[in-house]
Amino acid sequence: MQSSHTPVTTVKAASSSTVLEDPMSNPSLQVTADHQLKQVEAPVLVPKPGEVLLHIKATGICGSDVHFWKTGRIGPLVVEGDCILGHEASGVILKVGEGVNNLKPGDRVAVEPGVSCGTCFVCSDGRYNLCADVQFAGVYPYHGTMQRYKTHPARWVHRLPDNVSFAEGALLEPLSVVMHGINSAGLSLGRGVLVCGAGPIGLIALAAARASGAHPVVITDIEPRRLAFAKEFVPNCVTYQINPKLDAEGNGKAIRALFGQGEYFAPETILECTGIESSVCTAAYAVRRGGTIMVIGVGKAIMNNLPFMHISLAEVKLLFINRYRDTWPAAIACLKGGILDLKKLVSHTFPLEKAKDALELSSDPRNGSIKVLVVDNVEAKL
Amino acid sequence: MQSSHTPVTTVKAASSSTVLEDPMSNPSLQVTADHQLKQVEAPVLVPKPGEVLLHIKATGICGSDVHFWKTGRIGPLVVEGDCILGHEASGVILKVGEGVNNLKPGDRVAVEPGVSCGTCFVCSDGRYNLCADVQFAGVYPYHGTMQRYKTHPARWVHRLPDNVSFAEGALLEPLSVVMHGINSAGLSLGRGVLVCGAGPIGLIALAAARASGAHPVVITDIEPRRLAFAKEFVPNCVTYQINPKLDAEGNGKAIRALFGQGEYFAPETILECTGIESSVCTAAYAVRRGGTIMVIGVGKAIMNNLPFMHISLAEVKLLFINRYRDTWPAAIACLKGGILDLKKLVSHTFPLEKAKDALELSSDPRNGSIKVLVVDNVEAKL
Amino acid sequence: MQSSHTPVTTVKAASSSTVLEDPMSNPSLQVTADHQLKQVEAPVLVPKPGEVLLHIKATGICGSDVHFWKTGRIGPLVVEGDCILGHEASGVILKVGEGVNNLKPGDRVAVEPGVSCGTCFVCSDGRYNLCADVQFAGVYPYHGTMQRYKTHPARWVHRLPDNVSFAEGALLEPLSVVMHGINSAGLSLGRGVLVCGAGPIGLIALAAARASGAHPVVITDIEPRRLAFAKEFVPNCVTYQINPKLDAEGNGKAIRALFGQGEYFAPETILECTGIESSVCTAAYAVRRGGTIMVIGVGKAIMNNLPFMHISLAEVKLLFINRYRDTWPAAIACLKGGILDLKKLVSHTFPLEKAKDALELSSDPRNGSIKVLVVDNVEAKL
Amino acid sequence: MQSSHTPVTTVKAASSSTVLEDPMSNPSLQVTADHQLKQVEAPVLVPKPGEVLLHIKATGICGSDVHFWKTGRIGPLVVEGDCILGHEASGVILKVGEGVNNLKPGDRVAVEPGVSCGTCFVCSDGRYNLCADVQFAGVYPYHGTMQRYKTHPARWVHRLPDNVSFAEGALLEPLSVVMHGINSAGLSLGRGVLVCGAGPIGLIALAAARASGAHPVVITDIEPRRLAFAKEFVPNCVTYQINPKLDAEGNGKAIRALFGQGEYFAPETILECTGIESSVCTAAYAVRRGGTIMVIGVGKAIMNNLPFMHISLAEVKLLFINRYRDTWPAAIACLKGGILDLKKLVSHTFPLEKAKDALELSSDPRNGSIKVLVVDNVEAKL
Repeated sequence: MQSSHTPVTTVKAASSSTVLEDPMSNPSLQVTADHQLKQVEAPVLVPKPGEVLLHIKATGICGSDVHFWKTGRIGPLVVEGDCILGHEASGVILKVGEGVNNLKPGDRVAVEPGVSCGTCFVCSDGRYNLCADVQFAGVYPYHGTMQRYKTHPARWVHRLPDNVSFAEGALLEPLSVVMHGINSAGLSLGRGVLVCGAGPIGLIALAAARASGAHPVVITDIEPRRLAFAKEFVPNCVTYQINPKLDAEGNGKAIRALFGQGEYFAPETILECTGIESSVCTAAYAVRRGGTIMVIGVGKAIMNNLPFMHISLAEVKLLFINRYRDTWPAAIACLKGGILDLKKLVSHTFPLEKAKDALELSSDPRNGSIKVLVVDNVEAKL
Repeated sequence: MQSSHTPVTTVKAASSSTVLEDPMSNPSLQVTADHQLKQVEAPVLVPKPGEVLLHIKATGICGSDVHFWKTGRIGPLVVEGDCILGHEASGVILKVGEGVNNLKPGDRVAVEPGVSCGTCFVCSDGRYNLCADVQFAGVYPYHGTMQRYKTHPARWVHRLPDNVSFAEGALLEPLSVVMHGINSAGLSLGRGVLVCGAGPIGLIALAAARASGAHPVVITDIEPRRLAFAKEFVPNCVTYQINPKLDAEGNGKAIRALFGQGEYFAPETILECTGIESSVCTAAYAVRRGGTIMVIGVGKAIMNNLPFMHISLAEVKLLFINRYRDTWPAAIACLKGGILDLKKLVSHTFPLEKAKDALELSSDPRNGSIKVLVVDNVEAKL
Repeated sequence: MQSSHTPVTTVKAASSSTVLEDPMSNPSLQVTADHQLKQVEAPVLVPKPGEVLLHIKATGICGSDVHFWKTGRIGPLVVEGDCILGHEASGVILKVGEGVNNLKPGDRVAVEPGVSCGTCFVCSDGRYNLCADVQFAGVYPYHGTMQRYKTHPARWVHRLPDNVSFAEGALLEPLSVVMHGINSAGLSLGRGVLVCGAGPIGLIALAAARASGAHPVVITDIEPRRLAFAKEFVPNCVTYQINPKLDAEGNGKAIRALFGQGEYFAPETILECTGIESSVCTAAYAVRRGGTIMVIGVGKAIMNNLPFMHISLAEVKLLFINRYRDTWPAAIACLKGGILDLKKLVSHTFPLEKAKDALELSSDPRNGSIKVLVVDNVEAKL
Repeated sequence: MQSSHTPVTTVKAASSSTVLEDPMSNPSLQVTADHQLKQVEAPVLVPKPGEVLLHIKATGICGSDVHFWKTGRIGPLVVEGDCILGHEASGVILKVGEGVNNLKPGDRVAVEPGVSCGTCFVCSDGRYNLCADVQFAGVYPYHGTMQRYKTHPARWVHRLPDNVSFAEGALLEPLSVVMHGINSAGLSLGRGVLVCGAGPIGLIALAAARASGAHPVVITDIEPRRLAFAKEFVPNCVTYQINPKLDAEGNGKAIRALFGQGEYFAPETILECTGIESSVCTAAYAVRRGGTIMVIGVGKAIMNNLPFMHISLAEVKLLFINRYRDTWPAAIACLKGGILDLKKLVSHTFPLEKAKDALELSSDPRNGSIKVLVVDNVEAKL
């Protein structure tokens, strides 16, 4: 797809370290069809009508980036050729294409990475996240944001307020996932919420549930270290370490006890952020009768052992989401207004030229990293 | 529970011929803890305050009745002692207990079989079908309606209009299941609906979907005979025979093709009326992106092979129901107003004294029975 | 807007009566800024990329057409210059513009008259009916469908099945209004619905409520003749003639009595299709506690005398709609599948050349017209 | 109603000094049919089965208390005889009636003042706030909480956690009003909310909107002093003083500008907490297209000047509430968990014996009182 773009004709080599001598150097991190990562120069494209050319300032690394690298696919999405990774990003506008009136060079923006067709029925119906023809940055064959210069449709970038940093701008993408889940599930003030999994999405879900007025908020994980961080991140949450000796029903009951005595106080909404079979099953036993399990996490293609009769008798709503729709402005408002503070989630930061190291760090579960960012602090000019 | 009731002490003789010789004779069909059926006399109870004494005129046989007999349990509900079966019923009021002002002897009524506690949070919240303390007629230890005389709380009987027969009155219970499913899933005029399974619940769902203005309406089954009946029952439906050589995805695609070309026309709501794993999986592949699968059927305790990633990417809502709430008045209005005509569903009728034969017939899938009724045409007087 | 289109260069005069000798004659009915109607030749435009050129076969006359003519405005919409009227239309595709692949000459289609911008937040959010930049056919400065040849974006025409006539195709627009109202209000099977007003919209609402399985369905009007037609149109409805001697509360109570005894049976949804103050107030007293009044009718700019405290104590939802969104496919399915039959609504038909007579007939409340169509049975070729 | 209760016959003496000298002294504040307030001794009742006897520790004064006193009625509710005022209350359980197992003497509780019938359709449907037979404390003929000793059904009292004071317990009632409004309107994280009116309900709505993650949150009032308090109460809110020289549309536009540029940022939810005509009209112009106005305030019986066409074109949802349902547990969780801190709202406190002074203070808009509490710090024993 990007091959149909018109490459900028003169591409020069970069040289120095902190200050970009030549703005046309465009280092990028690419994944290959044979499961390699490579740091290579990429062409710089000229923005087409309706597009902007961005200097990407920060990109967060997502589990899916690691997954594409290690396994070459996520469900139907297959890495069939070289592809620049990255879809959690923010940057500065360098140039605007024809017809772009609401943005100008110098504007700081966050990138909404999915470019939907705009005309199919789900697009017309406002559910553009389900568009079958979405062109998603960082998913083959659409190059992502782990490069210095990227073109993107102006419609899918969102201006950042001054008090929201580029690092926070990159966090708007995982926050969007969580917000879409919460919008679809519908939290309410003073009602209990269970968050399953204390990875980056779970932690953001924890903060967002708290910011939505849910109480009590309990978070689970198998790893005490992650729970300790969760407790530090959202102090008045309650943590529960999954007991591997108990089955899903046993863990479900233990979790319920943390919400108070009686069915009434069982969590009416569960934000399942792992996609792991045993966690979904635990959620099924923890949720209040008539409650909702919002499955935000994506796991294996096939799930077994679902306690179907229990879910049926308890009249549970089992909801799923695919990415997000119309979440950036509200996510930005949350950061701007101090409703959410996600800065602590950034555990490690790498310069763009070391993006490969960032991926490698993110891929190792033992190092306790949470959100790893690739940043580009050079001053880019065209 | 019923053993704590006070049996009526004085029993008087009846007179004429088509009339009950001894009005106090109370034949009943009971299931036992050791998987037997027995036809025995049961005590006649006096209605307590707030109750009515009914002459049960018709009881439909449900798959669950057969299940309790053959396997002794459904999920957590276990037949631990003798229990009169039956919960799809209508009858005539013979006597009203203290404080019952809105009903009188002679009133023709349908029975809502679940008696919820009325004070727990789900009861207060209007979701009384989820009450953990429900006393459900025909589920041990609460005697059901396959007897001549039954007491029941006045609050849970619903007056029948003159143009609704007792047989139809008995069908209000399975219709209630379907209506609760439809109310929760939300059909809309001119939108496609898929009904999975052409058993009694599936057939009622088919008629109800059509009566709700859904179009096209497609129904599936593995049995051509059932589909032929469906086509006769709701002429402008489309039938699809599940192809056992195809997997769930293959059947799902073939079903989609019946709705028209393109994702837009895929069914936005699926009423899954089998609870069978392969059927739920087929539904997952048939449903439109962003659509809803309402699982009305109840199957095995544990379900495997759920295409989780597909459901997640398609942002499917997987909803479940447990029985019904606040459905009888609307169900009665449907029959009274000619919105629905379910009479053709009654394939066989047995007198109360032959209730055991009715159960046996219902338990044999080869005989093509649809809804089997036990009726009691004697004239009962107290 | 249309002035930016490229007019076809050679426009010749038409001559014969039933067969168009020269396809380029384009008679049209225009409203002027000084409240005149004029029948004049209009230029034939060439379809731009993404557009089709239609031969308009039928256009229904709407109250708004008469209103634009007589008063020159509806709310903020003002007739500031000549404008071809008409927005309820169907036709045949004569030519497709560049990039139109899913339609071809000869296709029979219905016209969705509003062309929304596709990029603003309400468009992105699926509520394109609220787009502030909508270009609506027949609303100045956007020419409408009361002409022989009209260009329209391919995205906003919908293919008609063979068993749906052009006349029915024109009725899809008012049906869309009703369907959007019903979708937003949410009818349910076996629940009572009140329709206020037996004009074209009210009559379609009556049929649609019935087709959605509502029961009982009551319709009101001040005119016995209209109610008589309603009863003929939907035989098992109940009619109520507004009693001008009663106030809103009095009429509301009398209407409630038609639904049955007690608050429970009061209508849970009211489709208010007049926009008249007294009718909205009557609806407020008729609706069930906790019920919904869907105001489909549009009336005066300011409404007085709303029984606010009553609405507040009864916790009524007072909902409003503006046109429709995503309704044509479902509306077409209703007609194709025999879910709705609206043909009887067409009371009068005029040829395009006599469109002015059609408007004049429609503007006279005394003649009992219901839906007046302007049709063009000539055979048009380019 | 209360006259059917049996007064306690034997009264024993108390002992210590800060302790009540005669525990059976039951001072009360009553409103009379001729618009007087009187402080008189009231009988102490024995709790009937299912009831508890409470020592009322705190009662908040509501605008409706003042209204009943000054005008003798609110809508259909008329003060036809002496009636103890008060319905925002908390206290300690002194005695439990027969069958009350989940509460015991010494338990600190909040009072949910409405006792619904429990069997009508709205009760069965979970909307018990709409019960036509509700017995509401402090509304004639049901005595309220401005007395020392009050019996109340155990089902309608809610245990207070240790960290929630009696004063806060009394605030749970107005918080319940707000929570029911918010639950019905549906706020979402990072979306703008407008609160109309900075009286006690508006201030609680402001805090609750903020606690639900709304942003920005703007509050209006005509009184700068109230807005100054609002700003102090919820620091990162924005205040807007209604400009009496502007009409509703003008004020609406000025309010919109505070949310940001463009329709997108107009508030999607408005919590109208005044019930005043001009404020509702202003809300109609301020709300985003397709947004929701939740009318929490109750005003005059009839409302005029509603900009109907504007509301219609903007497809606004105009929602109303009557009190609350199922809100105490969530409201308590909010206070317990620090999600909300309402303590600053208590501007004045009076002992029970000076309840009349409290009413008088509350009735004078000039003194800047916010929430006035009547407390009873004596130690009551039976």
